[in-house]
Amino acid sequence: MCCPELVRSIPSGPPPPRGPAQGALALGPDVLARLRSVCDLTHPLTADFPVFPAYRPFRATPLFSVERNGFFAQELCYAEHTGTHLDAPAHFYVEGGGTESVHAPDLIAPLAVVSIAGRAARDEDTLLGVDDLLAYERRHGRIPPRAVVALHSGWEARLDQPGHFLNADASGVMHAPGFSPEAAEWLVHERDVAAAATDTLSLDFGPAKVYEAHLALLGAGRYGLENVARLDRVPPAGAVIVVGAPAHRGGSGGPARLLALY
Amino acid sequence: MCCPELVRSIPSGPPPPRGPAQGALALGPDVLARLRSVCDLTHPLTADFPVFPAYRPFRATPLFSVERNGFFAQELCYAEHTGTHLDAPAHFYVEGGGTESVHAPDLIAPLAVVSIAGRAARDEDTLLGVDDLLAYERRHGRIPPRAVVALHSGWEARLDQPGHFLNADASGVMHAPGFSPEAAEWLVHERDVAAAATDTLSLDFGPAKVYEAHLALLGAGRYGLENVARLDRVPPAGAVIVVGAPAHRGGSGGPARLLALY
Repeated sequence: MCCPELVRSIPSGPPPPRGPAQGALALGPDVLARLRSVCDLTHPLTADFPVFPAYRPFRATPLFSVERNGFFAQELCYAEHTGTHLDAPAHFYVEGGGTESVHAPDLIAPLAVVSIAGRAARDEDTLLGVDDLLAYERRHGRIPPRAVVALHSGWEARLDQPGHFLNADASGVMHAPGFSPEAAEWLVHERDVAAAATDTLSLDFGPAKVYEAHLALLGAGRYGLENVARLDRVPPAGAVIVVGAPAHRGGSGGPARLLALY
Repeated sequence: MCCPELVRSIPSGPPPPRGPAQGALALGPDVLARLRSVCDLTHPLTADFPVFPAYRPFRATPLFSVERNGFFAQELCYAEHTGTHLDAPAHFYVEGGGTESVHAPDLIAPLAVVSIAGRAARDEDTLLGVDDLLAYERRHGRIPPRAVVALHSGWEARLDQPGHFLNADASGVMHAPGFSPEAAEWLVHERDVAAAATDTLSLDFGPAKVYEAHLALLGAGRYGLENVARLDRVPPAGAVIVVGAPAHRGGSGGPARLLALY
């Protein structure tokens, strides 16, 4: 978390939301024609899915039942940053675009999966850095423009045991991998990504006090995806992610259905 | 709403949910390679978006703000059948699959848009019937298996004036177009669709007392999409719909981000 030059370069507010409902796909016919399969990158949402400690868990309250009313319907209540979800620029910036403002073509993007799972098994607070991105590119080719770059740390295996996913220590500090601020800046300025994604609760690493990776990405009008599932099931390069983003106006984020085509 | 033979053929319960998180796409490389553009078929969700009268409107309550807390987040509360949304088999069947159970390949489907907007402008309660589907096929070719078949009635223009979308008369009966029960049966049994969709509030027409189109589709384990936007912007045949379905476990439905590729 050093690097004051980079932190200084974080813009004071995001550019205006892009937001049109129609546009040209960022994917060429060669990429699309290779797709054969789909993998759901979304965790099923339940009342016991771990949430950031400041939020109440997801609740579903029955309103009507098939037996009594002929149909079943519930009311849902939850904080926007629950389950597999999207962070909109508005999450950190007053002038940032809300959930509904993401440019539609940026919801169908090349997916680059960068795994630091080996290191994360030894160092819970490890950061995905620019070196990891350069090593990925040497092996899999250059990250295409308007891609979604996903951090795979293997963190979802921790959902099996209560408390292991948030991984808070005795003083309440959480421990989990994240993007380094420098990597987040590099993805925006050197590779023009549409978004960054992670299989952990946060783009920033667990002990972060200032959310520098969030600030760099959302401040540049990009979005984030958190609690992403099954990143180990899709190829590191060549897949396409479809982001079923929430569409409530002005929201800071919300549960998103993520599908990978490959 | 005649046709007791067809109503009798409605199964008493749906087949087991399909539900796997991975699978082969139902779309061939020829279909995928032709895609160039994306169109958002989702209405932005706001507190004044019309809902079925039994439900409370969508609410977003601020929890944290950038000014006070350094980040913005809200709690959202709403009935599952709010905004542009999905109906799961569980909406009408105790044993039906919930929102998270839809087979992932059925969320990326050929889209067939059948317009009855001309007739709907003269007859608010008009039904999309089997004849309309056959006429569509004569013009645009056979509806492919596991397609999403969408009814376009032009109803979204009514969102401009409060009350016009639900369109309830003095006695509270709503008036809007829908699928005939026979058309819903035909789509399931003769064309093996993945889902039916509509730009109105309900797959069934406004005055329905028994939701026969819902029963036929959801009873066969298929899903529904309601309040779909911009169906007039996509071609009647050859497009692909991506359904960003909600993923809360056991839900009867929920807001869905819908994207058409064409």
